[in-house]
Amino acid sequence: MFCPVIELAQQLIRRPSLSPDDAGCQALMIARLQAIGFTIEPINIADTQNFWAWRGQGETLAFAGHTDVVPPGDTSRWINPPFEPTIRDGMLFGRGAADMKGSLAAMVVAAERFVATNPHHRGRLAFLITSDEEANATHGTVKVVEHLMARNERLDYCLVGEPSSTVQVGDVVKNGRRGSITANLTIHGVQGHVAYPHLADNPVHRALPALNELVATEWDRGNEFFPPTSMQIANIQAGTGSNNVIPGELFVQFNFRFSTELTDADIRQRVADLLERHQLPHTLEWKLSGQPFLTARGQLVDAVINAVEHYTETRPELQTTGGTSDGRFIARMGAQVVELGPVNATIHKINECVKASDLQLLSRMYQRIMEQLIA
Amino acid sequence: MFCPVIELAQQLIRRPSLSPDDAGCQALMIARLQAIGFTIEPINIADTQNFWAWRGQGETLAFAGHTDVVPPGDTSRWINPPFEPTIRDGMLFGRGAADMKGSLAAMVVAAERFVATNPHHRGRLAFLITSDEEANATHGTVKVVEHLMARNERLDYCLVGEPSSTVQVGDVVKNGRRGSITANLTIHGVQGHVAYPHLADNPVHRALPALNELVATEWDRGNEFFPPTSMQIANIQAGTGSNNVIPGELFVQFNFRFSTELTDADIRQRVADLLERHQLPHTLEWKLSGQPFLTARGQLVDAVINAVEHYTETRPELQTTGGTSDGRFIARMGAQVVELGPVNATIHKINECVKASDLQLLSRMYQRIMEQLIA
Repeated sequence: MFCPVIELAQQLIRRPSLSPDDAGCQALMIARLQAIGFTIEPINIADTQNFWAWRGQGETLAFAGHTDVVPPGDTSRWINPPFEPTIRDGMLFGRGAADMKGSLAAMVVAAERFVATNPHHRGRLAFLITSDEEANATHGTVKVVEHLMARNERLDYCLVGEPSSTVQVGDVVKNGRRGSITANLTIHGVQGHVAYPHLADNPVHRALPALNELVATEWDRGNEFFPPTSMQIANIQAGTGSNNVIPGELFVQFNFRFSTELTDADIRQRVADLLERHQLPHTLEWKLSGQPFLTARGQLVDAVINAVEHYTETRPELQTTGGTSDGRFIARMGAQVVELGPVNATIHKINECVKASDLQLLSRMYQRIMEQLIA
Repeated sequence: MFCPVIELAQQLIRRPSLSPDDAGCQALMIARLQAIGFTIEPINIADTQNFWAWRGQGETLAFAGHTDVVPPGDTSRWINPPFEPTIRDGMLFGRGAADMKGSLAAMVVAAERFVATNPHHRGRLAFLITSDEEANATHGTVKVVEHLMARNERLDYCLVGEPSSTVQVGDVVKNGRRGSITANLTIHGVQGHVAYPHLADNPVHRALPALNELVATEWDRGNEFFPPTSMQIANIQAGTGSNNVIPGELFVQFNFRFSTELTDADIRQRVADLLERHQLPHTLEWKLSGQPFLTARGQLVDAVINAVEHYTETRPELQTTGGTSDGRFIARMGAQVVELGPVNATIHKINECVKASDLQLLSRMYQRIMEQLIA
């Protein structure tokens, strides 16, 4: 049985596109899209390959995704080489099968079928593809979005193909994502010999009550769409390695995943207040990775729910949990953004795989979304 | 002006005896002691050179010390090369001048003068010298003490030449030292992605209340001779370096300097209880560096006080503070142990130095202690 979605997914998996190396994936997609009348605009920045493609005009539905994959890890532990796709018991195996070359294949084939039946579609169908979402993501979607915004490109709906599903395709769609901000905190003390603590000032001892309060803080209670904001200490380090030296500095790095109940400014202020209250000599640097975004309701959410229900007879759950995605950048254009993709159980793992029939269903869902919004 | 103490100190400093390399220092001392009738017993173990020397018999007064020195650090910052002794403004400069080649020279010259005037002294005069006190100290005094104890050698009084003084020679003598014990604590959690904290168990968050209690604990209030027991976190480490990974383990290393109000068993028990109370999954390893010891009163303390008062008209202060010393091993033999040496202001530092006249005074003090105890 020949299936164009599985066939294209396999062609993409065969190209070992470790971020930010596209390894020829985009050329494959571009050839297919050009053949059905898309205009292609490559937007390559530094080491990252991106393209923007469109067909038609007016209200715009864009499909977004990335051709890069994470490294395969220990290849000897794969049941089959990670860049040689294989189907076993109905599962397509290979690095990127679920995240997200399967989605890319489903999008391209959906576009081909949609254009075949709607050659004169009403709105504009577009693709926004990058080769770096998994690594730094600094020269990828964020730059394409800046480029498009600079010339006032319109983007009404964006369907990101990230693997949103948990048990069967479409059971979960993401209609937003939490924000992410990281604090790099250094507490300053005075180094010394452990035998003479009165001549030193141990920054670990000084910091503990404040850190204790930090982890006990309730930042918010979340809301209808977001779980409560969560703070995690990811790294902590002090000491020279010697057991008789009181350290001079303590470094603590903590990350917030925050809901729309808070802004990053609220978080910065509350942490500053806490440190002030504990009178800790410190240096604090913040790195904002992304603001939270939410597509609460609207035509796109409705179209996605309809498409999933049509093919699975199950109503998808709307969630905003999980890591960040490029959706955070696209939301800045004012677009409605929803993520719908295959089951994410094996992503970034050894023996990444996806149910072949899920990719076929996914392609049909994508096509139905196109039909509802821009046919 | 020729002074035999300064002359010998300079000869010792010229030999760059970085632990455990003796660099010929002991040969110098041995030649001088043999010349005045000492029997020499080299006790070399692995990379460490030690000797035990004695003259006479009966009640035994031993002088203890080490020929090794700590590294000089950045030699370009020394006003004079660290292993080329020089006297400027009455100060003898060189690595080891204060810690403790000056003391070794003072001991040897004191013995020479004592033997010259007391060729048939009543008790036994001895030397216990090692080439590794500053580094691992595993093959030094501790082994010599085991060796002597195995054959029931008697050691009544021990004068350790460690630089005990703070402003002028003899202003402080150490009549004991705190114990030292180190805990290596690993708190076990479950690693995970910061976006999915419910699937992980952050060991840093878990540990903070316990660590907070640990640093707030009053372990004891010390006593007449000891300051309160002090605990210091020397090292703390968790995290992969990434800001989006919840660490799987937290490592904390903390060291106690403890008084005779506590035993190491008390400390182990109290820490175990604390961890138990906080229900922390953990692994805990202890390393005992030394038990506390105290020579509260007695002939040695009296003789030392008398000698210091005789030459400085100042009564020395008895202290037990500061780092550990080889006195902890010698005290196991049941000996009275006191430390008396030069001013320690520059030890282990760039431009280590000692007042030349202090070394001359110190040699006279050592001689007077010999006269009081074994003449």
